[in-house]
Amino acid sequence: MIGVVCLNPALDITHQVAAADWAGVNRPSAVHTRPGGKGLNVARTLHALGADVLVLGLAGGSTGAGVQDALAGLGVPAAWTPIGGETRRTFTVVDTESGGSALFSEPGPPVSDGEFARLRVRYQDALDGWAAVVLSGSLPPGRPADCYAGLIGLAAAAGVPVLLDTHGAALRHGAAAGPAIVKPNLAELAGLTGRPLSGAAAGRPAVAAAARELRAAGAQAVVASLGADGLHAVTGEGSWWAGPPGPVAGNPTGAGDAVAAALAHGLVLGRPWQDRLRHAVALGTSAAAAPVAGEFSAADYRRLLPAVTVRPDTAYPDGAG
Amino acid sequence: MIGVVCLNPALDITHQVAAADWAGVNRPSAVHTRPGGKGLNVARTLHALGADVLVLGLAGGSTGAGVQDALAGLGVPAAWTPIGGETRRTFTVVDTESGGSALFSEPGPPVSDGEFARLRVRYQDALDGWAAVVLSGSLPPGRPADCYAGLIGLAAAAGVPVLLDTHGAALRHGAAAGPAIVKPNLAELAGLTGRPLSGAAAGRPAVAAAARELRAAGAQAVVASLGADGLHAVTGEGSWWAGPPGPVAGNPTGAGDAVAAALAHGLVLGRPWQDRLRHAVALGTSAAAAPVAGEFSAADYRRLLPAVTVRPDTAYPDGAG
Repeated sequence: MIGVVCLNPALDITHQVAAADWAGVNRPSAVHTRPGGKGLNVARTLHALGADVLVLGLAGGSTGAGVQDALAGLGVPAAWTPIGGETRRTFTVVDTESGGSALFSEPGPPVSDGEFARLRVRYQDALDGWAAVVLSGSLPPGRPADCYAGLIGLAAAAGVPVLLDTHGAALRHGAAAGPAIVKPNLAELAGLTGRPLSGAAAGRPAVAAAARELRAAGAQAVVASLGADGLHAVTGEGSWWAGPPGPVAGNPTGAGDAVAAALAHGLVLGRPWQDRLRHAVALGTSAAAAPVAGEFSAADYRRLLPAVTVRPDTAYPDGAG
Repeated sequence: MIGVVCLNPALDITHQVAAADWAGVNRPSAVHTRPGGKGLNVARTLHALGADVLVLGLAGGSTGAGVQDALAGLGVPAAWTPIGGETRRTFTVVDTESGGSALFSEPGPPVSDGEFARLRVRYQDALDGWAAVVLSGSLPPGRPADCYAGLIGLAAAAGVPVLLDTHGAALRHGAAAGPAIVKPNLAELAGLTGRPLSGAAAGRPAVAAAARELRAAGAQAVVASLGADGLHAVTGEGSWWAGPPGPVAGNPTGAGDAVAAALAHGLVLGRPWQDRLRHAVALGTSAAAAPVAGEFSAADYRRLLPAVTVRPDTAYPDGAG
């Protein structure tokens, strides 16, 4: 079983509006509600892949109940720790005529020491039954930057590998705690190193250097997601570039969460790194094309899988980087 | 006690955003959530006026629970009948730099015969203790146009006067059932008569004629709300124009619901019509100036009250119209 910790989930609400009037009154033609936030997107994707998943989450208020109901409706198992605050919402307005969209993302509720301690107790109890843990998303207000680092330490003590997908200080502290995999995107990697990075071919050495730096800081493997340029992985077994067969367009949030899900799945299945990356690129690309984060077309995924290119980073073929 | 029936309430969510990007990602600087829909705005206003109120409403899903929690948090007593559908939301984005705003209003959930029958039983039980009933807002999907008419008939049998504030077929059927007061706005009145109306002085005879028509159709009194031009009342005791002392700007939804609350309050207090109208204009004007429907400044209300103009409609001074 893969444990997915969701400290700051969301209820994602999407309004489809024909010719939205940004200065007037609109009556959406369709309203969709789903459990959201990066961790729940990863959990939904793992569930859709057929993996055994358990979400450990924090939820509060009627919006938290809405998230719980929506996730249960999708059949994803979860154990929720209640909080006093109200779980956040995201609102997306999609103009069905222009194809444009606007996102309004609420800040998360603060989480107290006591609330987090109760989740951590459940986490420690659950660790024994887990083959891997995914820690994904931003920390809620009130949690210190070393919050994920503490959870990674507990997992290490239980011998359970961790995939960490976050940014800023939480990523820096988390990487130092020695997770099996960290999965920054370009902006997160650039934020960490303080150097601008580009996913274009010209910037690849800089990306590779930044990923090696993050590995040197403690992460056992670093998989940088480069948007349409695929993935760059620096691991103890080698370094690779993995790219999609053609141009990628669509939802970058969904793509990143699908990559995290595929990497965690590959980890528990014991796939070699090249295979993990192949699956991660194919799943990420198919998720980018899906209209909604946390979803993907299984047909696209199967079709893309043999077309993904994975090649060693010739500068560091032995993984010393 | 005044009963307020809310068949199609809403959770009103407002995001305040500095320089909203209608094609990008926004992080609201403030998020406000409150119970909404016309009926709940009326109930909140009556509660703020110090009136004894009981809301009888339909609510479902986690959004329904959110409405219930939010109303309870304001101290407004309510008895809710559960429905299988999910209570609707409205989503307003206010750009704090430009002052502009956009509203996205979800359709309400369908209400089944059985669900409505359970509410009606509670309504009949409650009628004995009520001095008046307010029926306000649109009918939920699945309810026939004579739904309010049936509730008005039950109130009439119990000797309880009804204020009806709705539109279209529900207003036409409702008016025929003989409510004490109907409160259409100009658009609703025009929709009913099939004739265009204008609130400007030139259109006043047309407004008065339409209001008389609606009274002839069964309503005991008609109070047409004319936006910045105030109110025109046609009653069994006379006809009046009532206007604010100066220009009115702001939130027309909040203003109309405040007018309905003031008229219901004046009815149960036994105020003469001129006084009811004076209070209704002052309260409506102060509510229009408030940023949020269902709220008003008590200081504005008190300040405006003596400055409201109420004068008989000289064409029909004896109320024969």
